[in-house]
Amino acid sequence: MNLILLDKDDFIGKNRVRVPGRRCHHARDVLHAVPGRTFQVGLLGGKIGTGAVVAIDGEFLEMDVLLDKQPPEPLSLNLILALPRPKAFKRVLQGLTALGVKRVVLLNSWRVEKSYWQSPLLAPLAIRQQLLLGLEQGRDTILPTVEIQPRFKPFVEDTLPILAAETCALVAHPAASCACPADIGQPITLAVGPEGGFTCYEIEQLTAAGLTPVHLGKRSLRVETALPALIGRLLSL
Amino acid sequence: MNLILLDKDDFIGKNRVRVPGRRCHHARDVLHAVPGRTFQVGLLGGKIGTGAVVAIDGEFLEMDVLLDKQPPEPLSLNLILALPRPKAFKRVLQGLTALGVKRVVLLNSWRVEKSYWQSPLLAPLAIRQQLLLGLEQGRDTILPTVEIQPRFKPFVEDTLPILAAETCALVAHPAASCACPADIGQPITLAVGPEGGFTCYEIEQLTAAGLTPVHLGKRSLRVETALPALIGRLLSL
Repeated sequence: MNLILLDKDDFIGKNRVRVPGRRCHHARDVLHAVPGRTFQVGLLGGKIGTGAVVAIDGEFLEMDVLLDKQPPEPLSLNLILALPRPKAFKRVLQGLTALGVKRVVLLNSWRVEKSYWQSPLLAPLAIRQQLLLGLEQGRDTILPTVEIQPRFKPFVEDTLPILAAETCALVAHPAASCACPADIGQPITLAVGPEGGFTCYEIEQLTAAGLTPVHLGKRSLRVETALPALIGRLLSL
Repeated sequence: MNLILLDKDDFIGKNRVRVPGRRCHHARDVLHAVPGRTFQVGLLGGKIGTGAVVAIDGEFLEMDVLLDKQPPEPLSLNLILALPRPKAFKRVLQGLTALGVKRVVLLNSWRVEKSYWQSPLLAPLAIRQQLLLGLEQGRDTILPTVEIQPRFKPFVEDTLPILAAETCALVAHPAASCACPADIGQPITLAVGPEGGFTCYEIEQLTAAGLTPVHLGKRSLRVETALPALIGRLLSL
């Protein structure tokens, strides 16, 4: 927790917050909060700044806060991601949020196991919890939107061409003839397949929607490695 | 396991292997190996190719193998990495190996907790196990070397200047004034600090050894996110 994320409900005065639960316990047990110490804070959806501890016990962390800076710039990226395996899902969402991704579409694909769609991790509150942890990690306050698209074809035919328009639109594909470009300085739409990749048919559909296949070398990478490698390469963080 | 990694001891004939243990069980239970199916294989330290299953049971996987291709090119990168927290250590080593990193120095730093150096994960056989899993993921056969340097100063003063010479030598540092360059097309030496970063004194020492501080944006990233982002940005994978 590099930033204590505040909610409007935490405010008990103009600049005074009273923070309960997990954040209070983390501040006490991990950050060793004591009266007088200051921490980086941010208002969910708003500015960041500092919070000076006024009091802390097992129930509440009270701080005087000053919110005077804008959160970091969002990445200009629409990320279309084949639904990752549940074991990696939390880490992937947290990592993407920490990197500054603000729009994620979780898409079905032939090689996504059907059972993944039944995971309780896909419940809106479960997703939100991972996004909040990612914001705390990345010192940010702006929640990404995460859209769930269990049907490949209608999304790729109807929605993706609109998303991709006026962006540099790419799909990561190990068999592509072009290498992934670096630091291209314009808004990006990027599709990343499941482990095992998109099928040839899916690549055709994505290409028809305006995406260009690019590869990231000969090695097969797990999604949690491939995503930061692609994002770090394509964008200035 | 995208590639079944073979050891010299697995050979029972010129082109015939008999693979026991974990790899056999994984081939049977996850890859659904049956006689006649082929899989990508590679000889540890040698070539890659294909293996056709001849027989499989609970004890052994027998294959006829043809090793006719070179493994993927290594990355031209010396990675100096503050020892990661044990919880992330396995994932980090596997991810680096899958990316093609061939030289890793695990270094002490002020913000590395002392207890991390006591982790059983640092035993040579435990490290080797993670490297093998990374090679299987990245379809590679060449083990990285992993060097353990629990003393910061002698390494940075005596060894690092030699490593860094004739490479583009960088240290990731959130407070740096330069952004991390992209795709620089020359050998790289890269130092990455612990969570919380190198101290100012350590940055001075690393700078004196020839490294230039560069940042990767304002966000704080976990080491398992920062590393692929830096490597994907700096090098053509």
